[in-house]
Parts: sequence; C-alpha cells; structure tokens
Amino acid sequence: MPASRTPPSLPFDDDALHEECGVFGVIGVPDASTFVALGLHALQHRGQEAGGIVSYDPDRGFNSARHFGYVRDNFTSSEVIETLPGAVAIGHVRYAKSDQPRPTAIRDVQPFFGEFAMGGAALSHNGNITNANALRRELIEHGSIFQSSSDSECIIHLMARSLQRDIPSRMEDALRRVEGAFSIVAMTRTKLIGVRDPLGVRPLVLGRLGDAWVISSETCAFDIIGAEFVREVEPGELVIATREGIESRFPFRPRKPRFCIFEHVYFSRPDSILGGRSVYETREAIGRELARENPVEADLVCPVPDSGTPAAIGYSLESGIPYAMGIIRNQYVGRTFIEPTEQIRNMGVRLKLNVNRALIRGKRVVLVDDSVVRGTTSRKIKEMICDAGAREVHFRIASPPTAWPCFYGVDTPRRDKLLAATMSEDEICAHLGADSLKFLSLDGLYRAVGEANGRNNESPQYCDACFSGDYPVAPSDMIEQGFRMETPARRKKKTPAE
Amino acid sequence: MPASRTPPSLPFDDDALHEECGVFGVIGVPDASTFVALGLHALQHRGQEAGGIVSYDPDRGFNSARHFGYVRDNFTSSEVIETLPGAVAIGHVRYAKSDQPRPTAIRDVQPFFGEFAMGGAALSHNGNITNANALRRELIEHGSIFQSSSDSECIIHLMARSLQRDIPSRMEDALRRVEGAFSIVAMTRTKLIGVRDPLGVRPLVLGRLGDAWVISSETCAFDIIGAEFVREVEPGELVIATREGIESRFPFRPRKPRFCIFEHVYFSRPDSILGGRSVYETREAIGRELARENPVEADLVCPVPDSGTPAAIGYSLESGIPYAMGIIRNQYVGRTFIEPTEQIRNMGVRLKLNVNRALIRGKRVVLVDDSVVRGTTSRKIKEMICDAGAREVHFRIASPPTAWPCFYGVDTPRRDKLLAATMSEDEICAHLGADSLKFLSLDGLYRAVGEANGRNNESPQYCDACFSGDYPVAPSDMIEQGFRMETPARRKKKTPAE
Amino acid sequence: MPASRTPPSLPFDDDALHEECGVFGVIGVPDASTFVALGLHALQHRGQEAGGIVSYDPDRGFNSARHFGYVRDNFTSSEVIETLPGAVAIGHVRYAKSDQPRPTAIRDVQPFFGEFAMGGAALSHNGNITNANALRRELIEHGSIFQSSSDSECIIHLMARSLQRDIPSRMEDALRRVEGAFSIVAMTRTKLIGVRDPLGVRPLVLGRLGDAWVISSETCAFDIIGAEFVREVEPGELVIATREGIESRFPFRPRKPRFCIFEHVYFSRPDSILGGRSVYETREAIGRELARENPVEADLVCPVPDSGTPAAIGYSLESGIPYAMGIIRNQYVGRTFIEPTEQIRNMGVRLKLNVNRALIRGKRVVLVDDSVVRGTTSRKIKEMICDAGAREVHFRIASPPTAWPCFYGVDTPRRDKLLAATMSEDEICAHLGADSLKFLSLDGLYRAVGEANGRNNESPQYCDACFSGDYPVAPSDMIEQGFRMETPARRKKKTPAE
Amino acid sequence: MPASRTPPSLPFDDDALHEECGVFGVIGVPDASTFVALGLHALQHRGQEAGGIVSYDPDRGFNSARHFGYVRDNFTSSEVIETLPGAVAIGHVRYAKSDQPRPTAIRDVQPFFGEFAMGGAALSHNGNITNANALRRELIEHGSIFQSSSDSECIIHLMARSLQRDIPSRMEDALRRVEGAFSIVAMTRTKLIGVRDPLGVRPLVLGRLGDAWVISSETCAFDIIGAEFVREVEPGELVIATREGIESRFPFRPRKPRFCIFEHVYFSRPDSILGGRSVYETREAIGRELARENPVEADLVCPVPDSGTPAAIGYSLESGIPYAMGIIRNQYVGRTFIEPTEQIRNMGVRLKLNVNRALIRGKRVVLVDDSVVRGTTSRKIKEMICDAGAREVHFRIASPPTAWPCFYGVDTPRRDKLLAATMSEDEICAHLGADSLKFLSLDGLYRAVGEANGRNNESPQYCDACFSGDYPVAPSDMIEQGFRMETPARRKKKTPAE
Repeated sequence: MPASRTPPSLPFDDDALHEECGVFGVIGVPDASTFVALGLHALQHRGQEAGGIVSYDPDRGFNSARHFGYVRDNFTSSEVIETLPGAVAIGHVRYAKSDQPRPTAIRDVQPFFGEFAMGGAALSHNGNITNANALRRELIEHGSIFQSSSDSECIIHLMARSLQRDIPSRMEDALRRVEGAFSIVAMTRTKLIGVRDPLGVRPLVLGRLGDAWVISSETCAFDIIGAEFVREVEPGELVIATREGIESRFPFRPRKPRFCIFEHVYFSRPDSILGGRSVYETREAIGRELARENPVEADLVCPVPDSGTPAAIGYSLESGIPYAMGIIRNQYVGRTFIEPTEQIRNMGVRLKLNVNRALIRGKRVVLVDDSVVRGTTSRKIKEMICDAGAREVHFRIASPPTAWPCFYGVDTPRRDKLLAATMSEDEICAHLGADSLKFLSLDGLYRAVGEANGRNNESPQYCDACFSGDYPVAPSDMIEQGFRMETPARRKKKTPAE
Repeated sequence: MPASRTPPSLPFDDDALHEECGVFGVIGVPDASTFVALGLHALQHRGQEAGGIVSYDPDRGFNSARHFGYVRDNFTSSEVIETLPGAVAIGHVRYAKSDQPRPTAIRDVQPFFGEFAMGGAALSHNGNITNANALRRELIEHGSIFQSSSDSECIIHLMARSLQRDIPSRMEDALRRVEGAFSIVAMTRTKLIGVRDPLGVRPLVLGRLGDAWVISSETCAFDIIGAEFVREVEPGELVIATREGIESRFPFRPRKPRFCIFEHVYFSRPDSILGGRSVYETREAIGRELARENPVEADLVCPVPDSGTPAAIGYSLESGIPYAMGIIRNQYVGRTFIEPTEQIRNMGVRLKLNVNRALIRGKRVVLVDDSVVRGTTSRKIKEMICDAGAREVHFRIASPPTAWPCFYGVDTPRRDKLLAATMSEDEICAHLGADSLKFLSLDGLYRAVGEANGRNNESPQYCDACFSGDYPVAPSDMIEQGFRMETPARRKKKTPAE
Repeated sequence: MPASRTPPSLPFDDDALHEECGVFGVIGVPDASTFVALGLHALQHRGQEAGGIVSYDPDRGFNSARHFGYVRDNFTSSEVIETLPGAVAIGHVRYAKSDQPRPTAIRDVQPFFGEFAMGGAALSHNGNITNANALRRELIEHGSIFQSSSDSECIIHLMARSLQRDIPSRMEDALRRVEGAFSIVAMTRTKLIGVRDPLGVRPLVLGRLGDAWVISSETCAFDIIGAEFVREVEPGELVIATREGIESRFPFRPRKPRFCIFEHVYFSRPDSILGGRSVYETREAIGRELARENPVEADLVCPVPDSGTPAAIGYSLESGIPYAMGIIRNQYVGRTFIEPTEQIRNMGVRLKLNVNRALIRGKRVVLVDDSVVRGTTSRKIKEMICDAGAREVHFRIASPPTAWPCFYGVDTPRRDKLLAATMSEDEICAHLGADSLKFLSLDGLYRAVGEANGRNNESPQYCDACFSGDYPVAPSDMIEQGFRMETPARRKKKTPAE
Repeated sequence: MPASRTPPSLPFDDDALHEECGVFGVIGVPDASTFVALGLHALQHRGQEAGGIVSYDPDRGFNSARHFGYVRDNFTSSEVIETLPGAVAIGHVRYAKSDQPRPTAIRDVQPFFGEFAMGGAALSHNGNITNANALRRELIEHGSIFQSSSDSECIIHLMARSLQRDIPSRMEDALRRVEGAFSIVAMTRTKLIGVRDPLGVRPLVLGRLGDAWVISSETCAFDIIGAEFVREVEPGELVIATREGIESRFPFRPRKPRFCIFEHVYFSRPDSILGGRSVYETREAIGRELARENPVEADLVCPVPDSGTPAAIGYSLESGIPYAMGIIRNQYVGRTFIEPTEQIRNMGVRLKLNVNRALIRGKRVVLVDDSVVRGTTSRKIKEMICDAGAREVHFRIASPPTAWPCFYGVDTPRRDKLLAATMSEDEICAHLGADSLKFLSLDGLYRAVGEANGRNNESPQYCDACFSGDYPVAPSDMIEQGFRMETPARRKKKTPAE
C-alpha cells in the first residue's frame, strides 16, 4: 500500500460539499476499539478517505492504527482489533480536502498522539482551526517538530509546551490559543475528553452504554452499539469522562452559539437526532417549506439520490404530486474506480446514476436536490432526464444558494467555482437548461429547522456563512492568503435568493 | 490474491434470494471490453462474487481476465482493459452459490473458453442446467477433461464434440442436449451470439449502439453505454450478431414461455424495462395491489431498504398512509467485512440498517418488504423497530410465500430452511412477533405484472415455482439427489397464502 | 495479483541457460504437501517463475494451489498447507520460457489435473515433448479442450481418451504417443507414479522416508526432508509407489540412455548425487580438466559467482594458482526488480556483481565461468575487472562452446543468439576483449564426468546436443517450424572448439 | 500493508550478530534518489528490515518514502522514484533490533525529518546513542513531541531547539550533547552532511561522481554507481558537501579513534575497502592467522557459508589443506518464510544449508565460521556434517569469543545468551560435540587487521568491547537499566580465549 493516496477525481465527486471528519470515543468497556470501529462505521458518511483508532491498555501502552479507505475494510478484523487493546479508545474518519497541494500522507491521518512528561494523550478533531498557520510558525520557531501537515497537530504541540500539571488543563491552555470550529475527542490513559468550540459549530454528543461513556459526532453512532443518547456536549464545554463519572469545564469566554445549519441540510445522517428531532424529519420539513415557497404543476416529484430523498418526500406530501424514484443509484459505485480508463472516467455521473426511462417518458418532473455547488452534476442529470423523454424538468433546491466557502471544517471549492457566487437564480436555471429552478429561502430554511420567525438578522441563530457570507469567526489564515470578506450590503446583491 | 474465496457469511446475507448471474456482450466497437466492463457494472446487482471478461483481437487472439470482487475494482483500470483488446467481447458477473461444498475457485468464474478445430469460442451463462451431472458423467466417460465445477462447462465440451462445421451450429447441437434455464452470451472471433432457453426463464435483451450490437441480461446496462434497446431475445431464439447484421435461429421445439416472475419482484433493477414497462412501475403496482388486498390502519408506510422501496411507495399511494424512511441503510456496508471479530459479526443487521428512532417512536408502522426467505432479518428488524418505540408493526410482503427452492439459476436455501415451507402466514406473523403480517396473493402478483385475470392455473403465464412448486422443467439432477416434487393438491394445503 | 506475469527482463538474466522444471512427489506421510513444499524449495534452482502442488485426501478430494514466485513465499504457510491435506501429494517448480509469445498464465502452471471415469489423476513434468503441436491438433479435432498452452497437458488428454481401465495403464498408452524428454511425477488417489523417458535425458530419483516413498528430480531434495536416496528411476521405467510397495514397468522400446551432460555442468545442485558422485566433485574435476587442457600463468583464479565456483576451485587446485573471490555477488538480488526505472535497469550486471577492486588491482586473473551463452554478461564482467585495474584477464570456460539450442526442457536462445554458433573461440575472445579464452573440450568434459576415454562418437554416452548438434530425438515440432538439423560434417566446421 | 512488522523468528536467524544500519547520501545529480536506491541496495547486508529515502526538489519540497523489506522490492520502480525528485537525497537501511519490546513501526524507519525555522533537514544514522533515554526525557519535559521510538530522533529535536542560525551549526550543538557511536548522513535543501563520532566507531566514506558528492557507510556502494572513493570521513569530522565543494569542521574534543574491529570480521562487505585494503583480504589474513595459531590435520577446509568463506580460503592457503564447499547454501532462502507451518519452522537450518554428503563422507573436516554467538546454528551444522558421515569435525572460529554485548549499533543478544560469556573454549567444544574447537586470539585478530604487534592493551587501537568488555564509551542508558560493566581483572577469568 502506498503511504499516501491521491484524492479521488471522478467528475461527479467534485460537485458536492463534503464534511471533513467524524470523531468517536469510548471509555469503560473491554475491547473499546471494537466499539470505536462500529461507531466510526456509523459515521463513515462524514469522511471516507481514511480512518484511525488509538487505544490504551495498562500492559501494552498506547497503540494506534491508521488506514486509507473504509472502516469496514480496515478496522473490523480480529487481526487489527487485537493490536488495539484496552478499555479506552478514540477514533476518527477523515475526508480528503480537495484543494490540498499534495496527497494525504498516512501521517496526516488522526488521531494524533503526544507523549508528555505526565503521560501520553491522543486527540482527534472535527472542524478547522482558522489560525493554524500562525500557530504553526510560532511553534516551529520555538523548536517544535511537526509530524504532519494537519492543523490539528498544533493543539498537541501547544499542550506539550503548557506548564499545567495535568492533561485536561494543558488542553484548556492550548485551546484558548486556537480560533475556529472544533469538536474534539481526546483521551489519556484514564480519561475520555470531549470539547466543543464556544460557537458549537460542529456537533458533538454524549452517550452512555451501561457504565461506559461514549462521545460521538452524531447519535446514529450510539444506535449501532446500543448506547443511550444522554445530551449534546454544550458549545464551549470540555467534558471529562472517567470511570468515576463526568466532569464539565467551561474554559472559554461565553458566546452565543452558531451551530452549522448545513448539518441539517446535508451532512448529518437522517437517523441522527439534532435539536430533539430526527434529521430526516427536518429534511422532510425543508421539502414541505420548499413546496410552499415554490409550487409547480407536475406529474412526479423525484429526488436526486440519495441526499435529496427526504426533502423530495416532504415536497410530495405538501404538494400532493406523487413521489417516484425517477433516478436510480447504482449501489455498487464506490470511491474505488482507481485510475479508470479515460473512456470510463468520462462516463462520469452515468456510472452512478441512471434515469428510470420508462417511468419518466412524457412526464413533468420536479427534481429535488439538497444543494447546488458547481452545478456540473445537476447539468448532467438534467440532460439524462431530457434524453429519457421528460416533458418538463423543474429543479427545487432544498437550501439557499451556496455562494461562500466554508472555513469551519467543510470542504468547499474556491469561491469562483461556486455557481451561486457568480450567477443569479435565473442564470443558474438557464445554465442547467431547466424549465424552472428555485432555491429555498434562507428564512424558509430557518423556519424548517424550527425557527418559526426565520433568521434573526441582528444575531443569527446558526452559522450560515456558506449562504450568507456572514462568518462568525474571521478566517485569519485565509485572509492572510488573500481571501476578502465582504460587507453584507455588497453581498446582498450577488446572492438574490436570500 | 487467493485463488478461491469463501462465500461471505454475515447473518443478514443469508436472508435473501440471490440471482446467480448477469451476462453482457458487444460486437463492433473498438475497445469492446470497456463497454463490457460498464455493462457488467450496471448488472452488478445480479452477482457480486466475481466477474470475467473475454475479448478477441486479430493480432493478439483471445484474452481473458477473471477476478473475485466488484467490476469497478477489477475491470475499470487501463492496466486491465489494455490486456483485453479487440472489437468483440463478452462478460459475466457471478453470485456465490450458498450451498456449494467448497469455495469458488477462480477457474469456476465465467466466461469459459474452448479452442475448437475451426477456432475458439467463449461462453457465459445465466441460469442453471438441470441435467448437468448426467451430461458431465457422460462427457468424462468419453475423454473430456473439465476445468471447473461449473455446469456451464458442459456446453463447451458438447460443442467440442459436435461434428458441425461452424460454431453456431455446434452450439445448437450442444444446447439440444441441455435441460433447464439458460440465457447465454457467447462469442467467436467474428460473432456475438445470444441464446435463450425455450421457456425464456431468464431475461436477455438485444440492443444497438451505432453500428455495434449489444446483448445483455437487462436494459439498464444499455443505458450506461448509451445503447438503444431493440427488443428482447425471444424464448428459444439463437441470435447471431456480426458486422453484417443479425441472424435468428430457432433450434428448439417451440414451447409456451414461462418467464421468471421473481425477476419482477426482486432480481431485476428497477430502471430496467421488462414487458414494456419499467420494473419500478411494476413494483409500485405490486405495492398498490398489496394495499388493496391487505389494508391496515397506520401512521407510516416504511420500506425495508432498499428492495422494498418501490412497493412501499405503491402501498402509500394506494392507501394514503404517508411514506417515510423509517429504516436507514448504511451506504458503506459492503460485502467486505472479511473475517470480522466475533463481536462485530454478532452485530448482524445493525451494521447495515438503523431505525430512525425519533421518527418511529409512538407510531403505527406498515413495513413493506419484497419477500420472506428465512425470516432472520425480518425478525431483527421488527425488534429494532419495537425497541425504538413503535406502537404497532404490520408486515406487508410484496410477494406470495416463498415455499419452494428455485432450480433455474436463483440461489435459494434448501426447502427446510424456507420459513414459508413450514409455517402458515399466521405462524410466520407470530414467529416475527408482528402485530399483523400479510403476503400478496399469487393472483395479486399476476395482476400486478399485467395479467388482469390473474394466474391461468391450467397453463401458467410465468415460472412461479418458488411460490407454487409447479416446476416447468423437471430438475433431474436434484431428483437424482433425492428432491421430491409434490402434486399440486398436496401443496395447496401447505402454502395457505396462495 | 495478476493472473499472468511477464517474464523478467533484466539484461543479465538473458545470458544463462535455464532449467525449466523440477518435480517432486511423496506418498505415505500425513501432510504430504508439507514435504512437497520442502522438496520444491530444495529444487528451486530448477525453476523460479512459479510452482504448484496437488494433494489428495479421502474426505476432501483433490486440492491444488498454484502461485507465481518462490516456494518459500507461497507454499510454506499453514494457511496454504491446510488447503492441501492428505498423505499423497506432488509438486512442480517452473522456469519461464524466454521465447514464449505471451506471459505465462497461472493455468499454465503444473501439476495438471484430469478427472477420468475411474477417478482423478494429477501430473507434472520436467522436460519437453517434441511432438506436442501435432498431438494437440489431433486431440482438438477429436473434441478435447485444452486449459493451458502447456505441452504437458497433451498427456492428460491422451490418458482421458485411453480405453485402459486403470490410470497407470492409461499413462503407458499416452506416453507411447509422446516424443521427447520427460521425467514425470504423477499421482492418483492411492498411487505415486514416476516415469522417465527411454533416453533418460532428465534426472529422476527414488527415495524412502520411513514407510513413505519419495520421487524427486534431484537427491538434494531428499536431504531437506531427511529421506534416504534409494536409486535413480531408470531410463524408460514407470515406477508405481503405493502403501504396499514399489512396482516397476518398462513400457517403452529399450534404447541406449543419453543423460543430459549439462546437468553435470550447470543445472543440478552441487550437493546432489549424480552417477554416484556429488555434482560438486564432478565440477571440481571439470575445473581440473580445464586447467590441464588450458594452463596459463596468473596470480589468481576467480569464479564468476556462483555457478563457476566449484570449477574455479578445481582449476586452482590443479594449477596451484591461488583461489580468490574476485567478484562478489550481492546476495539481495532477486528476480523482483519489477519494472525498475530505466536508469536502474541499465545498471545490469552491476546490480548483482561487484569486483573486489582492491584485491584485483594489478593482478593477472583467471576467470572461470560455467558456460558462454550470449556473452553479454561475460563482456560486462571483463570490463568491470579491467576497470578495477587487473593486468590480464584469462577466461576459462568449464564446458565446450554452446552452439545449439536444447529442445529437451532447457530454455536456450534461438541459435542465432548463441555466441558460439557464429564465432570461433578466438573470435569470442576478441569479442569479450580478454587476454585469452579457452573452452573445455567435449572429450575433456566426458573425461571429467567419468568417461576415461572421452566421447564415444559412434554412440555417445550422453545427450550433448547443445555442444554437438547431435540430437538424439528429432525435434519434430521445431522442424515443422523451420529448424534445420545439420549433418555432423557441416557442423564440425562451425564449432571449432569441439 | 501492516504499519508494523514482527521481527522474523526463524531459529537460525537468532544466531548471528547483525549490523543495524547502513547510510547513503548524494548531492549534485539529477534523480539523486535513484543513486541512493542503488547505494542502499549495495548496503543491504547492513540492514534488511526496512529502508527509507528522503529527497529535496525546489519545486516539490522534501519528499520521503519508507518501506519494510528489501530496497530492490520497494525503491527501484519508476513509480516510487518519481515521488522522490531532486538533486539531493539521503537514505537508510535498517536491521530489526531483536530485543525490542514491540514490532518496528514504519514511523521508526529513518531518515527522520524536521522542519526548522530556517528550513527542513533530514537525518539518518548508523550507530547507537548511549544516552538517548536521558535526552528524550529532558526533551519531552520541555515540550518536544517524539514521532518514533528511535534514539536518533533526539538529534532532530536537539537541533530544533538550538539557537544557531544555520542547520550545520545546529547539528554541532545537538551532537555535542550526544554520547555513543554515530555515523550520520544528513541533508538540507542545499547541503549533504556527513558526521562521524569522535571515536569513529562506525565507518563512513566520502566519494565523488563527476561533480557530485557521495557519502556512504562503505565503499562497495560507490562501485555500484561508478563513484570514486575519495577518503574516509575522519573520526570527529563533520563534512558539508554543496555544489561549491567540501567543507570540514571538527566540532568535538579530539580523542584517539577506536574503529569497530568486528566490521573487519563480519559486518562490512568483502569488496569494501577499509584501511586501504579490501575486507576480503583482511578476512583471508584472519584465516591464515587462525591456521598459524590453531593448526590441525584434516582432509578438507570448508566454510560455513557465506560469511566464513574468505577466512576458510585463507586457512586453506596457509595450511595447504584443500578448500571445498562442504556445505551448500540454498540461495532461495529469504527472510520471508512468514508464519510457516510448525513443521517447516522446525526444519530450521536445513531450509538454508545442506551438507554435500557425497563429498564429506569419511573425511576429516575443518569448519571455518566467522564467530560463535549463541551456538545454536553451529550445533546443528555439526550434527548435519556427522550425519553425512564425516570422520572428524574441527571448528576454527575466525574471531575471539564474543562474550560481551555491543552498545554501539550492533544487535547482540543479552549477555547471558552469549555462549562465550558463560563457557570456556573447551566447554563450547563439548557443547557443540566437535572434535576440536579453537577461536582466533585477540592479538591474532589485531595482527590480521595490520597491527603487527597485536593489541596495545594500554590504549587499544580498535573498539573490541564485544571480545574484551572494554567499552570506550560508558553505555549510560544501559547502566541505568542495570547493566554492570566489570573490571578487566574480573573479566579475564571468564573469557579465557582472549
């Protein structure tokens, strides 16, 4: 196996936003790494490029395994699990950043481990540190040696240099220097630690399994191991689970939370619980809202599989137009068309999706998709639907126009590659060649996630920077590299769908 | 790579019927093997254990590649495709037979190749030869040496011994000796040949791609390469495609066709066209018929993913009960949990499916599944749904009770492992612990596939042996091994749901 | 792993003759395949491309494993050995033919297996069948289907068509149709069978291990398992070993034996016993003979490692010139520089051999090599020695000029690539740029192997066709392809070193 | 690929001393990594467990590759070399330490890399740092985070914390803190750096290739790339090669050199030049000295292959007893009998060596081996020779008794496992069951390496701690762990052969 892997480059893989990470940890069960493997398998949708697990056993110390590829392929065999003994373990799944200059190396795969004077600690992280470059420069000047190109490694080095006498306090020291979005799962020999940044941008939940404690990005990972969902880790909270129980600390200056609204739209698994409701129900509500805002006469409501499905069901229920599977997904598509022939690469979306020709012919079709990023896939799907003889194609998008890159742990294209950054709704409709195209309004999205009065523009309830350009934390590294934040006034004109 | 592979043994894999093969061939395009790889990828649902491709090029002769695993992993790279040059190629995907005494060897993977005095031919086959054992004994006595344990190899040896001077005529000779169900794609240096048995049990379709001809198990494989669906190969037809065009022969005694009705229920892909209609529409019609026959008061109609989905949509549309995704399938489950730890193996169905807890709680749920084989998965799903707090669970099965094994190319358990062979509908309901359970009637199924008057018991329109025990071809090898066919009268009593 | 492998193509690999096979079998021990694996490991020098083992166990039938690469890498793990149970097993190691049009496929790797009406048999073979093409054509015309491109498969098909009622008799039938050189090890469920062609061209020896019987290409494979060398299988003998003991048959017309004299020069391992003496001793005697025939004044006698070593020691002992290791072989060179960079491929012989510069500088060196084939390696070695500052370089070759290809199981270049087919001894010396070069005479070689009066030209005691062009069996397939045998008279002039 | 590998455990692998490393670097050629790969291939005898290469290219920065296994298998393909562009590169081969508590991880494989404020540097090392534990503790307390368990990583961290403004000066700072034996090859973006510890325990040589500079553990690696041997790097020298030329620094307090005398006996390749003479000649001289000190009447002198060969030739030349290959080494034995069956593992030395039975029978044999470590292999060889019918077996060992572990980069067993630490010469002879056994005296060894008056006991010319227990640098980490150095007086009694 190569020590590094080129990010996959199929055309249709470019045309979606990707969560960069999922984290999971458990303390208090024998063979903790088995539970972590199962939890990571349930979180695989948050990252498919690589995964890692670290465990600790009093006799055999800290052990780790890191692999490119799926959890099921790398972390479910006895052979691997036996190398990861102990009653405390954490793990991580990672998505490939599409804009990175070189392929991911196995040393970039989390969790990261550091040996401190008082013992070792391992740490994994979902999110993005927006001042990582500055921190890294400073640490190198003082003699720290980085193992990886990962921003998260800064946290370990900051901890190593702290003068605090215990690891959680060193972590507090370190995290106070860090800007951005982070949901962290960390461990020492005797502690499982979860931390969420003060804004709570990324999710992190706490669960119980008998006497054991579990921390995860999402609740769906509790279900697979039979753990009970206790509560969310609160924004700004550092929670320490040991055999004795739970301790909470709040090391940061309090701020009003800004949870990522896109977790509702796309990232989280539909069977996870967010805000007391299943994500599926929220998405169905999004579809209903979309139908109310943008009705159309049609014969069928079809989802773009699989992410558009719940919203399409909601659209159908609200509009009364029958729901149907007009596009069939080949369930054997994986990320592993490694270096296909030119001819096969060019097939693009047809390797993955096929139109249900006999069903679609002569029909007026409402196509429900979760978002439009570059628009390349949407355009091809529209062509396939028309080739199959559809009479009309109406796009209904279950989110506002994605016009701004995310700097908080979601892999987005550069701004100039985002279709909605440069085109109005009508222009996008023309670009895709559709009969109509409508985005959900930002207020509509807020209503669907439970904010009856829509967005509070004075003090927004969520991080919606990808739609609004309103960044709750200034992305300092990116600004240093030339990214220009704009004033709300200028923005308004460019993203008319808001 | 091992030369053989143990069939996968996850508990939830035992509890479904599996198609054993898909076939695909093309003549008249450069790099024919690329098209075959794409076609096989589209037919992957018909067999995931292994695949093979043979091509012919005037300069480099016949070449072949055979691999365990998915088409996308083995047959899409330039490295492999370049070893398969030429303008004519055929391929095959294969399912593992669950009852075989030893693991599949790579030499058992089709297509098979034979060098005859007038040149070589390769052949692949979907179906099952019911007199293979007797033929094999006879051939060995006359000095034939078998390479594989596959029944299909008999055809090649019968062809080798024919006195005819051309390969299609040798194939006619050979196939007249063969009993059972077979849809064959074969090739010589200059011909692509398709054959369907006289009953037409398995599907086979003919398509065009510019000047090239294509033969496939299903039409969905035409869509991926942009080929046009011309017509079905007729039952009993041997069709020869060359650069000059198409020639049809009918070498068998004519019989009334008996197409496999289960292809409509489960095997074929929903976007394939069978009988002039998409399989999806037929399954939606099955769901409607099921709702008419077996209505129930409930809050939600949920499919068992993914095969129950179209019927669940039909049930919802007919009954007016809202459709919802109450069970979420982990899209990263594959066949590759190879030798997992005991603990992980025991997770069984939870590795694959999770209940949408927040949605299901307190609801009366109609669960629509395509069939019940052993019932093991159904039972676990019912438990998961109840654990999540559902108030009632009503199973609605989109086919009649599966009470008889198939001998025509479908991998079914021995009769005593089939739940419906030993239990009545009520007993099955009690066994699963459901609040109610209803199968679709055999007449209802016939109506849904377009036979307005239901089954013609005097002369059934389909092969429905798995439901009725009415085998259109006597399975001679199995009878020799002790299988007892029963009279319709005795059968009636045992399978009350008919 | 690929199903086929390109033959290695390092320049220095072209410049030697290669044995094509080693065979080994055992009956009467539990886990017979372990013994076969060890025996094949000891015979690895006879073939490194691939190996195979077949075993038979009453409960689990015939089993086989075939792999490209070394025995130690493929056949020594419990995982593999457990798939090969039983008390009788045979095996084979194979060399890649350098002139084959396409890479070896795994299906070409022996032993071959055939299922006959009275049970199965497996067979492996060292040698070459000189009328294989004609036999193959005839068999195909009668309906046999070949699995491989191997000549040896003919034997299995001829056996399948025999009307005899037991397998050894069918083998007699088959072998009477076969021309060429063959040392065969075969097995049925209860018998281990060894056969040597009437001329006894290739070696085959019989051994005992307690109550078990062992058959091998060479005695060195008896030593590794602790078996006792009983006797050679005689030319023309078919020996059958069962639990009851040994039975000998002589199915062929008796002929005067012509054992391959090159086995003494190069192929056999130095610790094997041939003709009652260790091969090492024979090679030392060859070196002594060479020193007597071709003395020279010099400071050091150095072998070309490793095959020239025993003859160099003999030369030193006879001449009194000190023996020294002037060329050091890198023991980590393998056959596995797979697709090296252009630059590394061009290093050629330097990857494998290095001159002991400090030792050689200013010395007159006698370089002893076993033979000269294409001369490419010899030329490079001479350059390296001179670069290191040697004062004189005298080649002494421990065999006569190799001027004719072998058709009896040794991989030789086409005649026009053999240096000695086109150049006289003096021309070769000039070509290599040496100060002198002398071959051993054919009579000298005969004396060294124990024929005090040298070669009996009326009725030669050995097969020496590679030196003399005197082929004891006409190579009919090659003649059909245009190879011209010459009269001894014409030959004499071309190969003056005789 | 596993991220770590269990050290090989064949019985006969335990019974030798193993060099732990070879280093190689080049600056000033395009594709420097190709030259490093070739150099490492030539140094493979110094370490077979794993290898690594780092290169630097202005456009693509620092790149590295690390692999378990042979250089030829991992670093010779275009695929790998292309990932290592640039005109400066260094590399390392590593032997597995047999006493390490856990398998080597890939992160322990050198070269190590560190990013400093003024740019990156990579470093690899042959030797052992005897105060590494203390240094590591200190560094961790100050916030350094170690990537590996390798002692060499300390150097990188000490460099990172230095306040010097350029990398060579930082290296001087770091190395002044380090105790033990080290021959280092390091690189920056524009410099190739070699350093040898003040005692010069391990070898390091400087060469030229046109305008390029090369540094290597041994001269044999110059030959393979055609480089010219310029001189040894001097003990205590830090040499910096750039495109402009060579700069020498001497950062350490001067000491009298103590080169490892065992490099002459065993570690270095026979074609390398040490002290102006080929190692082969020194070994031949050792054999002559051994014959003079310990003559015996016999028929044959046989080496234990392959390391005993030059000394056996020397013994033969001095004694007049003919040299012969009485033991034949199977050249296809590798380190890759991975997890063989129990039965095969028990074969032990027979998998690797076979006695030339026909040659040995009835003879009086002098067996020359380079050293006796645990004696397990010697004992088995003696048994094999006797089984073959030898009349007498006389061991002559080409070095003094190995009675003390090495702490300077050679992998030796714990003292209580060293046969000569607990037995006298006569006891060892009895233990092996030989007719006689004699070691070379320490003075004899000194004479053979060119010290006409033998060892200067007041101020020994070499490091001979493994024979004498006279450690030139106190092994502080080992002393901390309980190792007891003894006074020369007490030692004398225990190791009588001195």
